[in-house]
Amino acid sequence: MFAPIYLDWNASTPLDPEVLEAMLPWLGTRFGNASSRHEYGRQARAAVDDARGRVAAAVGAHPTEVIFTSGGSEANNLFIKGAAAAMKQGLIAISAIEHPCVREPARQLRRSGWVMREIAVDQEGRLQQADWRATLEARPSLVSVMLANNETGVMQDVATLAAQVRQGGAWMHSDAVQALGKVPIDFRTLGVNAITLSAHKIGGPVGAGALIVDKRVELAPLIAGGGQERGLRSGTENIAAIVGFGIACERAVIRQASEAERLSELRQNLEGRLLAEGACVFSARAERLPNTSFFAFEGIDGETLVGKLDRAGFACASGSACSSANPEPSHALLAMGVEPDFARGAVRVSFGRDTTAEQIEHFADVLVHTVAELKNLAAMAV
Amino acid sequence: MFAPIYLDWNASTPLDPEVLEAMLPWLGTRFGNASSRHEYGRQARAAVDDARGRVAAAVGAHPTEVIFTSGGSEANNLFIKGAAAAMKQGLIAISAIEHPCVREPARQLRRSGWVMREIAVDQEGRLQQADWRATLEARPSLVSVMLANNETGVMQDVATLAAQVRQGGAWMHSDAVQALGKVPIDFRTLGVNAITLSAHKIGGPVGAGALIVDKRVELAPLIAGGGQERGLRSGTENIAAIVGFGIACERAVIRQASEAERLSELRQNLEGRLLAEGACVFSARAERLPNTSFFAFEGIDGETLVGKLDRAGFACASGSACSSANPEPSHALLAMGVEPDFARGAVRVSFGRDTTAEQIEHFADVLVHTVAELKNLAAMAV
Ligand SMILES: Cc1ncc(COP(=O)(O)O)c(C=O)c1O
Ligand SMILES: Cc1ncc(COP(=O)(O)O)c(C=O)c1O
Repeated sequence: MFAPIYLDWNASTPLDPEVLEAMLPWLGTRFGNASSRHEYGRQARAAVDDARGRVAAAVGAHPTEVIFTSGGSEANNLFIKGAAAAMKQGLIAISAIEHPCVREPARQLRRSGWVMREIAVDQEGRLQQADWRATLEARPSLVSVMLANNETGVMQDVATLAAQVRQGGAWMHSDAVQALGKVPIDFRTLGVNAITLSAHKIGGPVGAGALIVDKRVELAPLIAGGGQERGLRSGTENIAAIVGFGIACERAVIRQASEAERLSELRQNLEGRLLAEGACVFSARAERLPNTSFFAFEGIDGETLVGKLDRAGFACASGSACSSANPEPSHALLAMGVEPDFARGAVRVSFGRDTTAEQIEHFADVLVHTVAELKNLAAMAV
Repeated sequence: MFAPIYLDWNASTPLDPEVLEAMLPWLGTRFGNASSRHEYGRQARAAVDDARGRVAAAVGAHPTEVIFTSGGSEANNLFIKGAAAAMKQGLIAISAIEHPCVREPARQLRRSGWVMREIAVDQEGRLQQADWRATLEARPSLVSVMLANNETGVMQDVATLAAQVRQGGAWMHSDAVQALGKVPIDFRTLGVNAITLSAHKIGGPVGAGALIVDKRVELAPLIAGGGQERGLRSGTENIAAIVGFGIACERAVIRQASEAERLSELRQNLEGRLLAEGACVFSARAERLPNTSFFAFEGIDGETLVGKLDRAGFACASGSACSSANPEPSHALLAMGVEPDFARGAVRVSFGRDTTAEQIEHFADVLVHTVAELKNLAAMAV
């Protein structure tokens, strides 16, 4: 098979070979429903418990705080709608750069009578301090601010925000889907009431995610039924995916520090070349995930560039793959005040475990060449 | 590995080898996010589209009517809460023997202001005609009646019910999770607005299910976000599971008729022996799934019996595995008017692809022996 060089690790990742190995028995002779009270069921239950311990350990949480879901989108919806359903209607505040699977459930709450507030970000994509203070003064009941953004990689100081939110008596949630495995995460240090994780962003399978949630938070289940996951997430447990998620978490945490160092060096090399060609690198002055680079060239359309790179054998993203059903310019860039036309030019590359220095060098060569070509075309068209 | 004889196919099934084969590439080199606009993403999208066609074909639906979910529980919650959110509060009617993942979301609606009605069943577990007529007269907005029950295997005449419901202007849903692959299903003939399917009950993987839904039904998404599945189910698509689901549907339908014949013969043999030993076979006079037998012996506890069978190397269920987090007597049996103490004695066996005549003969021998033993113990204890 023709295998393009994959530079879209924030969209999804290949399975870690050790993860696949751990999953395979659960796709073979070790099937069964973890609720069944026979040998097959007991083995399945033990596997889920084992994975729960691994996921909890990866983020410094207690195993009983782990609610397995089908993925990050479900976990975000579970927290936002589930917490809202258990309290009086009030104000929900989310950052202006949240993933759609936080923004859309918040909008659903608004349609049902809640007030919704999007907290502004500055040019670099960090929360605007003045708007944050105004948000706190408006006394929100629920706050959700992501730990790291999927497009720019910008990180927020969630621990500080959480302390302030909790002082006001509200619940604080953070979408940690993109942060997991790329930066250290400690549930206690963050001091939030809940975080969202997803397996397929860290070398685990699609089909598993988790809401790590403080037991004081009263939640209505999003998927109600048989009462699995402490009644908070019904449905036959996806043992293979949960087992894979557990191993993926463990391995992601083990390699996190060395990978962060290695990938940020690759990124520095790439961005050096991009800047030399006149690119604008978004959020370059903010604290960012080590693996993510989001950039644009004046006058060059992102879709066109990504299409040319695709044909040249490089898989990267224009805007966020997670919501690219719509070809709107990046919501995060617009929130940062970037002009729509310029935002439309944005390209995201994100690295992972298999990304090598050679790949990045090769990519930079082709990118520089392609950009020059497109600029010439544009000049000719004038 | 010690492999007990598996007689719990209604709880979950082993992966069909062809299904696993089709899934494996998607757990290997063919990863990626189906929303990504590069080679990996396009391949993933094509695989989802292909599977959508197979699932639709298996139930006589149009591919655009297939909304992939993480499983049956999610699909049931999506329909019930999603349809309710898009209409005025009213009456929701469900049968008294629905799976908890229909009953619990209906109860959530009740807590939010809806009226909920459980339609009574007769001794055999079929809808009671008088209560059904009374239900229609109460003018429900939403009705959900399962095609086949997971415990007794009893089937309802959903086509007739659906015609009456639709005449009253309401939406009709049917949980077809247990029916799929065991009896023919045709979405058009049923005439319902939506049905629920689940992959892991038919030789497919846990982690995929579908709501097959008529496009006239307005639904609010349960999992909102990136806008996948026509905006009705956000979240990165689980390609491996969806691909497996497609193949599993296709194969389940191909072998349905011959398997139905084969398994109902095995069941007849088993039930002949059970009746000879004085067992009560529930719903024996109703139309049932060909693979399911639910029975009890006077004075013998189901948990104890299932425990002994487990140690003897047979995996079967006492009550419904899907909700056996609680050890309450079977909800379906109580609805059928069975005494709680007798209901507590119930054992369910359910057959599938790998079930052989030898297994069933062996099982019947051990069961008869074990029951005799337990009866002697009980007699001694008096
Ligand atoms: C920040 C963020 N949150 C949530 C999600 C959704 O996770 P999942 O794909 O597991 O539903 C994604 C990616 O899709 C993401 O990047
Ligand atoms: C009748 C019925 N509906 C729904 C479900 C739930 O399906 P899933 O396990 O895919 O969530 C089950 C089994 O668990 C079932 O037997």
